[in-house]
Amino acid sequence: MTAITAVAISAVVVTESAAQVRKAEQPQAGTAAASTNAAPVFGIKIFPGWRDWRLVSVAHEAGELNDIRAILGNDVAIKAYREGTLPFPDGAIIARVSWKYVSSEENDKAFGRQQSFVAGDAPVWYLQFMVKDSKKYAETGGWGFAQFDKDGNPSADAAKLKTCFPCHEPAQSRDFVFTRYTP
Amino acid sequence: MTAITAVAISAVVVTESAAQVRKAEQPQAGTAAASTNAAPVFGIKIFPGWRDWRLVSVAHEAGELNDIRAILGNDVAIKAYREGTLPFPDGAIIARVSWKYVSSEENDKAFGRQQSFVAGDAPVWYLQFMVKDSKKYAETGGWGFAQFDKDGNPSADAAKLKTCFPCHEPAQSRDFVFTRYTP
Repeated sequence: MTAITAVAISAVVVTESAAQVRKAEQPQAGTAAASTNAAPVFGIKIFPGWRDWRLVSVAHEAGELNDIRAILGNDVAIKAYREGTLPFPDGAIIARVSWKYVSSEENDKAFGRQQSFVAGDAPVWYLQFMVKDSKKYAETGGWGFAQFDKDGNPSADAAKLKTCFPCHEPAQSRDFVFTRYTP
Repeated sequence: MTAITAVAISAVVVTESAAQVRKAEQPQAGTAAASTNAAPVFGIKIFPGWRDWRLVSVAHEAGELNDIRAILGNDVAIKAYREGTLPFPDGAIIARVSWKYVSSEENDKAFGRQQSFVAGDAPVWYLQFMVKDSKKYAETGGWGFAQFDKDGNPSADAAKLKTCFPCHEPAQSRDFVFTRYTP
C-alpha cells in the first residue's frame, strides 16, 4: 500500500504542473504580457490543445535527459507523416512532451520482475515545438523551434534556441525531423 | 548513410505491418469470418480509428518484452482520466500499442552520446485493448481484454486471456487500470 500511495502523490504533482501549463495556454491581457510567453528567436507560444494531438511516436532518452517522451503532431503534421509528404507543408506542428523516466514498483510487482519504466513528473524542459512556416523561418529550414518548462514558461535562452536547427541538419533528408511515424 | 538507409528499411516494414492491421479493421464478409478476428473469451475486435485516439501515457517494458509503448484512450476514457472519474464509465476503451525498443544510431550522433532509444518494428503482440462494459464483463471487474498481433490477428489463447484480469487486480483502487494519465 505504501508504494501505491507514493505514486499517487507523484501523480498529483504532475497534474498541478499540467494545470500551470494549461493556464499558460490562456490568452494574455496585453501584448507585453503575451510576448513574455513566447520563446525568443522564433516567437512561438504554447499551442492550445496540443495535448489532444495524435501520436507520432515515442522514445526514451537516457543520459542527462533521462526522460521518456511522446512526439505528437497537429492534423497537418499527422497527414503529412501518414502520406509521406516531404517537405512538411506550412502549418505542420510537431510537439515533443517528456516526463522523468521512473521505475514503477507497482508494475514490476504485477510482472513479477524489475522491468517497468513509466512517465513520472514533468522535467525542467517539459514541452518543445517545431513549427513549419517556410517563409517566416526560411533561414532555419522552414522550421521554428521553441521549448517551455513545466510551468509553461518559454526558454529565454536565445543562443540555445539557435542551436536547434544546426542539430537537426543531419535529418535534412526528412525535412529536418528526426522522429519517424510509427504506425 | 548506411545507418540511415537501414532505419528507413525498418520503417517500411512497420508500415506494412500497420497496413495489415488496418486491413483487419475492415468489416468482414460473413459472421464466421468476422468471428475469427475477435479475441476469444471477450469477443473483442480491433477498434477502427484507435491509432487516432489521444495519449494517456508512455512506458518502457524491459526484460523479455523489451518494448516501448503508448497507452491511448478513446474519448470516453480520456474524459474519465482527466476528470478523475472512477470507475471508468461503460464505453471507455484503453489501447496499448507497443514497438520493439531499439537504439537510434542517428539520434545518438545528434546528441553526441549513446542515449537514444526509439520505437522500431511491431513486436509479436502489437496491440491490446481493455474495454469497459460493466454488465457484459461483470465477472472481470467490468473489463474485457484482447490482444492482437502485428498482422491484426487476435490472440486465440483463451487460457492466457483469462490471466489478464487477475494480473490487473492489484490496481483495483484505480478500477484495475495500471497506467496513470500523464498531463
